[in-house]
Amino acid sequence: MRAVVMRNHKLSVDDLPIPQSGPGEVIVKTLACGICGSDLHALKYTEKLVEASHRSGGAFTMDLTRGIVMGHEFCAEVVEHGPATKKTVKAGTRVCSMPVIISPTGVQTVGYSNENPGGYGEFMRLTEGLLLEVPNGLSTERAALTEPMAVGLHAVQMARLDKDDAPLVIGCGPVGLSVIAALRMKGVRPIVAADFSPRRRQLAEAMGADIVVDPKEKSPYSSWREVAVWPDPSRAPQQPPWVTGPAVRPAVIFECVGVPGVIDHIMTAAPQAARIVVVGVCMEKDAIEPMIGINKELNLQFVLGYNREEFAQTLRNIAEGVIPTDPLITGKVGIEGVAQAFEDLASPEHHAKILVEPWRS
Amino acid sequence: MRAVVMRNHKLSVDDLPIPQSGPGEVIVKTLACGICGSDLHALKYTEKLVEASHRSGGAFTMDLTRGIVMGHEFCAEVVEHGPATKKTVKAGTRVCSMPVIISPTGVQTVGYSNENPGGYGEFMRLTEGLLLEVPNGLSTERAALTEPMAVGLHAVQMARLDKDDAPLVIGCGPVGLSVIAALRMKGVRPIVAADFSPRRRQLAEAMGADIVVDPKEKSPYSSWREVAVWPDPSRAPQQPPWVTGPAVRPAVIFECVGVPGVIDHIMTAAPQAARIVVVGVCMEKDAIEPMIGINKELNLQFVLGYNREEFAQTLRNIAEGVIPTDPLITGKVGIEGVAQAFEDLASPEHHAKILVEPWRS
Repeated sequence: MRAVVMRNHKLSVDDLPIPQSGPGEVIVKTLACGICGSDLHALKYTEKLVEASHRSGGAFTMDLTRGIVMGHEFCAEVVEHGPATKKTVKAGTRVCSMPVIISPTGVQTVGYSNENPGGYGEFMRLTEGLLLEVPNGLSTERAALTEPMAVGLHAVQMARLDKDDAPLVIGCGPVGLSVIAALRMKGVRPIVAADFSPRRRQLAEAMGADIVVDPKEKSPYSSWREVAVWPDPSRAPQQPPWVTGPAVRPAVIFECVGVPGVIDHIMTAAPQAARIVVVGVCMEKDAIEPMIGINKELNLQFVLGYNREEFAQTLRNIAEGVIPTDPLITGKVGIEGVAQAFEDLASPEHHAKILVEPWRS
Repeated sequence: MRAVVMRNHKLSVDDLPIPQSGPGEVIVKTLACGICGSDLHALKYTEKLVEASHRSGGAFTMDLTRGIVMGHEFCAEVVEHGPATKKTVKAGTRVCSMPVIISPTGVQTVGYSNENPGGYGEFMRLTEGLLLEVPNGLSTERAALTEPMAVGLHAVQMARLDKDDAPLVIGCGPVGLSVIAALRMKGVRPIVAADFSPRRRQLAEAMGADIVVDPKEKSPYSSWREVAVWPDPSRAPQQPPWVTGPAVRPAVIFECVGVPGVIDHIMTAAPQAARIVVVGVCMEKDAIEPMIGINKELNLQFVLGYNREEFAQTLRNIAEGVIPTDPLITGKVGIEGVAQAFEDLASPEHHAKILVEPWRS
């Protein structure tokens, strides 16, 4: 099969054997697969990703001397059932799945593995028990957004939001947009979102942000403070006596940038007792000032991925139109176009999500 | 009055005017005042403390060119009532108070301020409304432990502990010992505590730690894991499929060291989904690896001080013997001995808490 293979920090198009299904597995034909910021990270920092994953008990155990087919945001079509399958999902059915394979020997990722090619190739093998049917009437390209949108839902769930909380989203790339959609769905508003890119601010509005801020023009924290003042100050919880200014609702700040320095910047700018949810993946060492965290009693919640229920709920949400997805898809490429798409995605001015359609000529 | 004055990173004994009481304030005679690790920090990093406090909306607004009388862990005796006081607490009564003064112009700290000398001097001015009477039968020196013991109670409250949580205390200086006492009082056990110093490990046991670990001999995280395994695995919440080994109870790790590198070390060694409560005050920039936090979905809760209820509850707890205090007081000095006591406290082998008794000759 034709696939985009990552080797030595480079992408190239190769011919590979079609994967073989093990017990309980199916072979699927990839219909569409989104390119994720993590894939851009992985191409640049492959060794670092594997090393950090290894040290923290993670699942990324790639052998970097062999090729890897990335792609973990997919919608696919069942083509063949392997041994010991229940055949509950018929051949020809469109499906989504969390990008993992569960086998007797453990769990492996799809798309960050030597054995399990991801969606930048024509075929994949998947675990039958994890397949979710794409509802009739839902387009393949929207279904392919399940994975990235589940990331936002999980981040928002982990934030343990209360109706009085006032959210602020820093960074409106695909992760930030996904968080905005989940916040809007939960009805925790107003949603303030900040990004330097005009295009991304436009997307943030389309996804449901109430106020978008260009940090070059105005501090996102000032904009947040203006709308986070308690309408009824008698409902405000007591603040430490040295905190001045009008009482503001509890701040929940989503870090959706993932480059060094952003966590420190947020900690310094955050109001008293803010909760900071770190969704952006920073691959490098980063510096913080614990003293700032202590003085404000900040909380940092790091989050990763989603669970099975959140993934399934996201597919339902997309099918029911509860979360917007139309603004997100800004480009489509075939296999030959993937390397160029990676380069295009490095600049925020043109794209949110580019879908790979391996069968596109 | 005689007092220990901090100026230009040095301590010296000076004669100062007795403070004047403003409206709603009383003058008290200092009976005993503990030396806090924060005072050692403040002596070394005064500018940094003021600057970080300023940037994070804190209350430390010292003018460093003028002298400062530190000391915020005190028990005192009321000697004179200022104007507009209610005189609910009679002269001669022994009292404790949170080390702050609440005035019409705002809140000021006692002991980190040019205007409000702390307990390393013979007299202080305090806000009448904040005074707590020391119960009959409770010794002055135990009452002086209210402030440092309230720090541990607050940290444990902020940890939002559940009965299934398994705590680990990293560092058994006064802050760690205070956390251990609060954990023991809450009945969240077994309590695993680690420190390189044999003396501090001994104190940790005396304060209620169930298992003490010398990190030179064995990893505190291995010791923790051994006792944190679920006795009944069927009660364990589901772990991510890639996490191997027997299911362990949720980890709550208290960072009570406060030097650069410790947070990163804890993040790297912590189990999946651990909550890390940062109680130790690190005054310098510090490096972390966000990727490790993300892979494990760690939570970092920074904490500071205590609130009014926690402070009052701690005094009651000490009076009722609910938390042990006897092991803590390892030395007493007069005003002339404070500078030497600061040096002695830099080494963990000899002391937990040294009390300053300004009237001691």
